[in-house]
Amino acid sequence: MQFFSFWRSLASFRVRIALNLKGVPADIVFVDLDADAHRADAYRKINPQMALPALVTDDGTVLFQSLAIIDYLDETYPSPPLLPSDPLGRARVRGLALIVACEGHPLLTPRVRRYLDLRDSQQNAWRRHWTVETLAALEGHLAGHKATGQFCHGDAPTVADICLVGHVTAAINQQISLSPWPTVKRIHDTAMALPAFAKAHPSAQPDTPEAMRAK
Amino acid sequence: MQFFSFWRSLASFRVRIALNLKGVPADIVFVDLDADAHRADAYRKINPQMALPALVTDDGTVLFQSLAIIDYLDETYPSPPLLPSDPLGRARVRGLALIVACEGHPLLTPRVRRYLDLRDSQQNAWRRHWTVETLAALEGHLAGHKATGQFCHGDAPTVADICLVGHVTAAINQQISLSPWPTVKRIHDTAMALPAFAKAHPSAQPDTPEAMRAK
Repeated sequence: MQFFSFWRSLASFRVRIALNLKGVPADIVFVDLDADAHRADAYRKINPQMALPALVTDDGTVLFQSLAIIDYLDETYPSPPLLPSDPLGRARVRGLALIVACEGHPLLTPRVRRYLDLRDSQQNAWRRHWTVETLAALEGHLAGHKATGQFCHGDAPTVADICLVGHVTAAINQQISLSPWPTVKRIHDTAMALPAFAKAHPSAQPDTPEAMRAK
Repeated sequence: MQFFSFWRSLASFRVRIALNLKGVPADIVFVDLDADAHRADAYRKINPQMALPALVTDDGTVLFQSLAIIDYLDETYPSPPLLPSDPLGRARVRGLALIVACEGHPLLTPRVRRYLDLRDSQQNAWRRHWTVETLAALEGHLAGHKATGQFCHGDAPTVADICLVGHVTAAINQQISLSPWPTVKRIHDTAMALPAFAKAHPSAQPDTPEAMRAK
């Protein structure tokens, strides 16, 4: 399998965690978003949406959209499962993941900030606003819910935790204090203590620039 | 089941189509986004994200996020299926649905346009830009792909078509000509000819204002 990834892409981060949790090897192809490599013909032929990540299976099938890729990995490499076994639990986990993937992340992407053409201070306010909205939505669904455990749903990581850590990473990058969202912070810290999560972090990838590497 | 919906919510539109296709009855509770009813305590207790739609099962479990709700409906009412039976096909259908749900729709929502506080002309340019980006991404993945049939994937509707028609509805509302994206237009027209899709349209709901009703 070929996995098209970029160190600071939070959607790539999600798939890296899933690959690590499942122990699935993939040849990584680095696509430099900062050099607009995702808009070049080579990548555009693979994913006409020109977005990361993409996963190309050994028979040449292109998979796109991080959550669709993770579902595929979960179906083809079932252990450990990234979704609960009951439909109501799966719906909750998928819902939590989608809060990040649909409302949290898209508004923070460089293509959106670039389109807005805002001054730096306005850009920062924009990012902070949507980051905080999503932190609050997650905390509202997690805090005090009977299904919340060490992780978002019970005591093992799911795709909800995969999405949560990416969003909290965006918050930390903006130096947003997490104290108003203690459940989100606790789950982030619990998940990031697992090697499968830590090794997938943007600061620890082969293509991470030296200045951005974890110290 | 209780289904919390608003006539012009495109995410509610998706769940309405799924309920219609499956023939699943639900008591509809109208949440007037234009009156900020989604931010009032009554709804906030149901969905702390304060977003539509939500589905409350007979045992009181709250489901949120349209794609998570549709997955739940597909698992609990399997006929007709809204996903293909093979993992690669499911990944493609989920990926197409997520292009709309993650990159298309969130940028068009009133809460985002309101935050931007743009003049009308800038708002229109913003909406048009992201609507067109997503139409192009869908066409790029659909046109000429061997799995594309009468619908996005084969000859029966899936969750990809459910998301596609919502996005095309947003384009039509903006009077965007669909001629650059003939595959998207063809699939939209095919799907909207089905009663399950047509009856779910924003212009045909009990809470649709008179001026917005289909003539």
